[in-house]
Amino acid sequence: MCGIVGYIGKNQAAPIVLDGLSKLEYRGYDSAGMAIFDGSKINITKSVGRLKVLQELTHDGATMPGNLGIGHTRWATHGAPSDVNSHPHFNEKGTIAVVHNGIIENYLPLKKKLESKGYHFISETDTEVLAHMLDYYYKGDPMGAIVKVLHRVEGSYALGILFSDFPGEMFAVRKDSPLIVGQSGEGCFIASDVPAILKYTRTVTYIDNQEIVRLTPEGLHIYNVDEEELEKESVTIDWDAEAAEKAGYEHFMLKEMYEQPKTVTDTISPRIRKNDIVIEELGMSDEDLLSVRKIHIVACGSAYHAGVTGKYVLEGLARIPVEVDLASEFRYRNPILEDGGMVVVISQSGETADTLAALRESKKRGFKVLGIVNVVGSSIAREADNVMYTWAGPEIAVATTKAYSAQLIALYLLALKLARVRHTVTEREFEGMLEDLGRLPDQIELLLNNKNRIQRFANRYIAAKDVFFIGRGIDYAISMEGSLKLKEISYIHSEAYAAGELKHGTISLIEEGTLVAAVSTQPSLYQKTISNMVEVKSRGAFVLAVTCEGNREIEKAADYVIYIPQTNPFFANSLAIIPLQLFSYYVAVGKGCDVDKPRNLAKSVTVE
Amino acid sequence: MCGIVGYIGKNQAAPIVLDGLSKLEYRGYDSAGMAIFDGSKINITKSVGRLKVLQELTHDGATMPGNLGIGHTRWATHGAPSDVNSHPHFNEKGTIAVVHNGIIENYLPLKKKLESKGYHFISETDTEVLAHMLDYYYKGDPMGAIVKVLHRVEGSYALGILFSDFPGEMFAVRKDSPLIVGQSGEGCFIASDVPAILKYTRTVTYIDNQEIVRLTPEGLHIYNVDEEELEKESVTIDWDAEAAEKAGYEHFMLKEMYEQPKTVTDTISPRIRKNDIVIEELGMSDEDLLSVRKIHIVACGSAYHAGVTGKYVLEGLARIPVEVDLASEFRYRNPILEDGGMVVVISQSGETADTLAALRESKKRGFKVLGIVNVVGSSIAREADNVMYTWAGPEIAVATTKAYSAQLIALYLLALKLARVRHTVTEREFEGMLEDLGRLPDQIELLLNNKNRIQRFANRYIAAKDVFFIGRGIDYAISMEGSLKLKEISYIHSEAYAAGELKHGTISLIEEGTLVAAVSTQPSLYQKTISNMVEVKSRGAFVLAVTCEGNREIEKAADYVIYIPQTNPFFANSLAIIPLQLFSYYVAVGKGCDVDKPRNLAKSVTVE
Repeated sequence: MCGIVGYIGKNQAAPIVLDGLSKLEYRGYDSAGMAIFDGSKINITKSVGRLKVLQELTHDGATMPGNLGIGHTRWATHGAPSDVNSHPHFNEKGTIAVVHNGIIENYLPLKKKLESKGYHFISETDTEVLAHMLDYYYKGDPMGAIVKVLHRVEGSYALGILFSDFPGEMFAVRKDSPLIVGQSGEGCFIASDVPAILKYTRTVTYIDNQEIVRLTPEGLHIYNVDEEELEKESVTIDWDAEAAEKAGYEHFMLKEMYEQPKTVTDTISPRIRKNDIVIEELGMSDEDLLSVRKIHIVACGSAYHAGVTGKYVLEGLARIPVEVDLASEFRYRNPILEDGGMVVVISQSGETADTLAALRESKKRGFKVLGIVNVVGSSIAREADNVMYTWAGPEIAVATTKAYSAQLIALYLLALKLARVRHTVTEREFEGMLEDLGRLPDQIELLLNNKNRIQRFANRYIAAKDVFFIGRGIDYAISMEGSLKLKEISYIHSEAYAAGELKHGTISLIEEGTLVAAVSTQPSLYQKTISNMVEVKSRGAFVLAVTCEGNREIEKAADYVIYIPQTNPFFANSLAIIPLQLFSYYVAVGKGCDVDKPRNLAKSVTVE
Repeated sequence: MCGIVGYIGKNQAAPIVLDGLSKLEYRGYDSAGMAIFDGSKINITKSVGRLKVLQELTHDGATMPGNLGIGHTRWATHGAPSDVNSHPHFNEKGTIAVVHNGIIENYLPLKKKLESKGYHFISETDTEVLAHMLDYYYKGDPMGAIVKVLHRVEGSYALGILFSDFPGEMFAVRKDSPLIVGQSGEGCFIASDVPAILKYTRTVTYIDNQEIVRLTPEGLHIYNVDEEELEKESVTIDWDAEAAEKAGYEHFMLKEMYEQPKTVTDTISPRIRKNDIVIEELGMSDEDLLSVRKIHIVACGSAYHAGVTGKYVLEGLARIPVEVDLASEFRYRNPILEDGGMVVVISQSGETADTLAALRESKKRGFKVLGIVNVVGSSIAREADNVMYTWAGPEIAVATTKAYSAQLIALYLLALKLARVRHTVTEREFEGMLEDLGRLPDQIELLLNNKNRIQRFANRYIAAKDVFFIGRGIDYAISMEGSLKLKEISYIHSEAYAAGELKHGTISLIEEGTLVAAVSTQPSLYQKTISNMVEVKSRGAFVLAVTCEGNREIEKAADYVIYIPQTNPFFANSLAIIPLQLFSYYVAVGKGCDVDKPRNLAKSVTVE
């Protein structure tokens, strides 16, 4: 969950590396550093703190001359954020420099072994092991040393490596952490992600596991672990580099919330044709769809919450049993997959390490995997059997909003498609639901435009210590996401509870004034949720309700009510989440939190 | 979730009602009251606070003479705890008095209607509606009025009712809330639960839904809604009334924790015969067991956490897919139950309203239900097709310990039985696991005797605001229960997280000194959990680890380690939960909390 960038070519490397890192800060931002070869030796500058510190330390790179360099922006895993734990890491002689994204799992035994050989460690990182190991195995042949190290480390990594004996070459390698390379008339580049080098080239090559890259000012060569050169195709990126800018909003998060009507439209419209849903990229005939007996949804974080909603929608509309798993749990619990099972993995970045591992585990067992992914060309997009893209565009804020909304839509479309093929909904119901889907963008817009009222309410809860979100059924899934939004950007300890479960313990935490947000969008459960609201209210809670227009009865049990427009109850999440996103945003803004880059978090979780 | 008691007979009613209520305080204790008929009119005394307040107000009943009375101990659902919201409730003339356990769901429209007829309400409760409705329909015939009210209210209730026109009669009725009646030479009794009247009689009758009881000093008569008298069998209770006493421990909770070795032994031993597991009460042949294709476990609170562990154990040992549902969610989500499905409901009290409703829903759909229940003769025990009792004995502390431990054992036995029949474990493995099971009681004893070390550690965290419990697989299930124990009795906001999921948002809450309890009992996941411990530690967390003897490597990533003895990883929950129970207990004791009766909670949740 770090970002790496490297350059070799005609120009000064440091400014290019710094610029590239600035595009990767979403991958981590607790410290940064770079190593630049000045023609005779490798110089390293690194520091805890945002990239800005490094830019100032090096006068935007001017103090570090040289045409070859690697850089790193860090999200701590092993060893707290500190100068010494920052990357790059050196061997003792300072002749080998390494930047690393990932986790070396067996670093403790490796470290012990190296210490017994006389190596001294100065940091607490797993990465320093790599620098010393490269030194240990290096006998004048960089590729040979890299291959030896590959065979001895377990875990995930993308590495950029400099050897001072080879001033005209840069090396890179990866396993289970993303890495791309690019080339232009000015030189060659490595990076964790495309935006880092988009300013310099639009021709990139995705490096696969255990491939080694050797870059020179003139070109790049890719090898397998037997050091045989490979022919790999490059792809041309047609993104707009401007798309990721804030466009006048105070934060990326707010901008991305406001992009949700468009995101929802973009995800729906290519798949609706003449009153039918066509998901060509599914790669499944109607017969294939009829043979599905069970769906396993696997994801992390907000994508997992989208999956929980998906379970309710898929089971409710298509009557197919669905099991939703956290990816980090799925891959290690030896899950039971049976004939007729279909695996759906969901990830915005397409690089989420646990989700990717779950995908591989499922494929290994012979199951087809559908990826619901936002980033084209990402690892999950490339490895899944079929991909349904969420057309949300680049998402920069760490707390997801528009990608989550697009994931919901993808799941609704999948459920409706399955329901129609399996005849579990009537034609009339199907058409009604298509109309409801079509109305969602305008309805979301309406809710977004109501932001002032929510901001005023949010200002009252800036000092809250604990907040609870409760709901039943789909409303429970909405509560999970509402709670996560609040906790990740405002650092308030919020927790979501199935409304009926609260009284089995957690209700003991309700005190005078505790905020309880009750989500109630399912008419069949209105009464039940009111009962639970009354329970917490009678213990002193302040009850905020999010419900559908028309449910006036809720006002008797709530202190404050936010109404959402009427839609099919299966799609209510897409509307109810909007005020909850706004609430979290304004609480965090009111507290002065760094909304787009909350502490301890990174956008794309490419370690386990 | 309230307790009701009533008496009619030769003796003074008030002391008997007070004594009965004192045995029902586990059902709720935020206010109490009673109505006693003094020969000419009904007098009511009631007050917010523990039963003790009522005892003092009435000089232990002496100020309220009379041979006919009803009483109530409350756990607020509608209307905050207050004098006026306490039961009993009167009609306006004071001629009808009602005590109520349950929730009237349609009380708002009913209240509106009664107000339009000129009735004035003085409380915020749903119960007051009943008093006025009885008044409205009463034309000199109590039974007639009661039947009319039954047909108009929706929800759950057990009622005790006095009419001043009928000084020699008491009435009671129930739907979906428990009610028993008893009779002795001295008079007749009603109560929510057996202990309330055990001192006076051991012959009790369980009242079924929508049955009406008329009690006189001489005897009791039970009618259906057509007012036809019914013949019902009574049962003789052979419990020892002393069994529920504290036996020298400071709290029931501590006493019950110390009973766990015995509880585990009692739950295992009747089911092991000559190296095989025999669960006669399953009522299933080996062929039946082979035909099980899926298991649905449904429960609430700690029983749900036992169920989550059950999923891992059943899937791992018997390779049968298991879906675990919160009962409050299961009953309303229209779950997909397919041929070969088996439903298992788990409840200590056997009265948990949502679990009972899930049982009924499953039966209605034609599925057999196995109940794992602690209280013999409880509603779930009576309505399930088959019952596996957990032999934990009466559990008084609101926070469950020994009943949870017994539920785990029941699930292990079920999994092993299924695994043997389905040949998913070898004979050798099976025998090894029987031996591991047999060792658990001594191992639990050992952990309990280590309590001083845990108490010292707990004292450091009395002022904690937030605590996180993390684990993977079964360790996640253990974390859920460890977290619930802490929050329910110490009011500290703790939360359990799948260790790999923490970084998808919640890690932003980790600050310098935040306590993170990492559970790591599964050797195959040791390394993965260490990585997650390092992540939180590098952000300042203080890491407490609970792991198995021998996993010394964990000490590098933990600040404090508690070791549990070696056992089969599938059974590790039974050991790892012990130090977590002790930790919660000592934190709560250190904070001066009312450990056995935490605020807002009741032992047996008989409302939704």
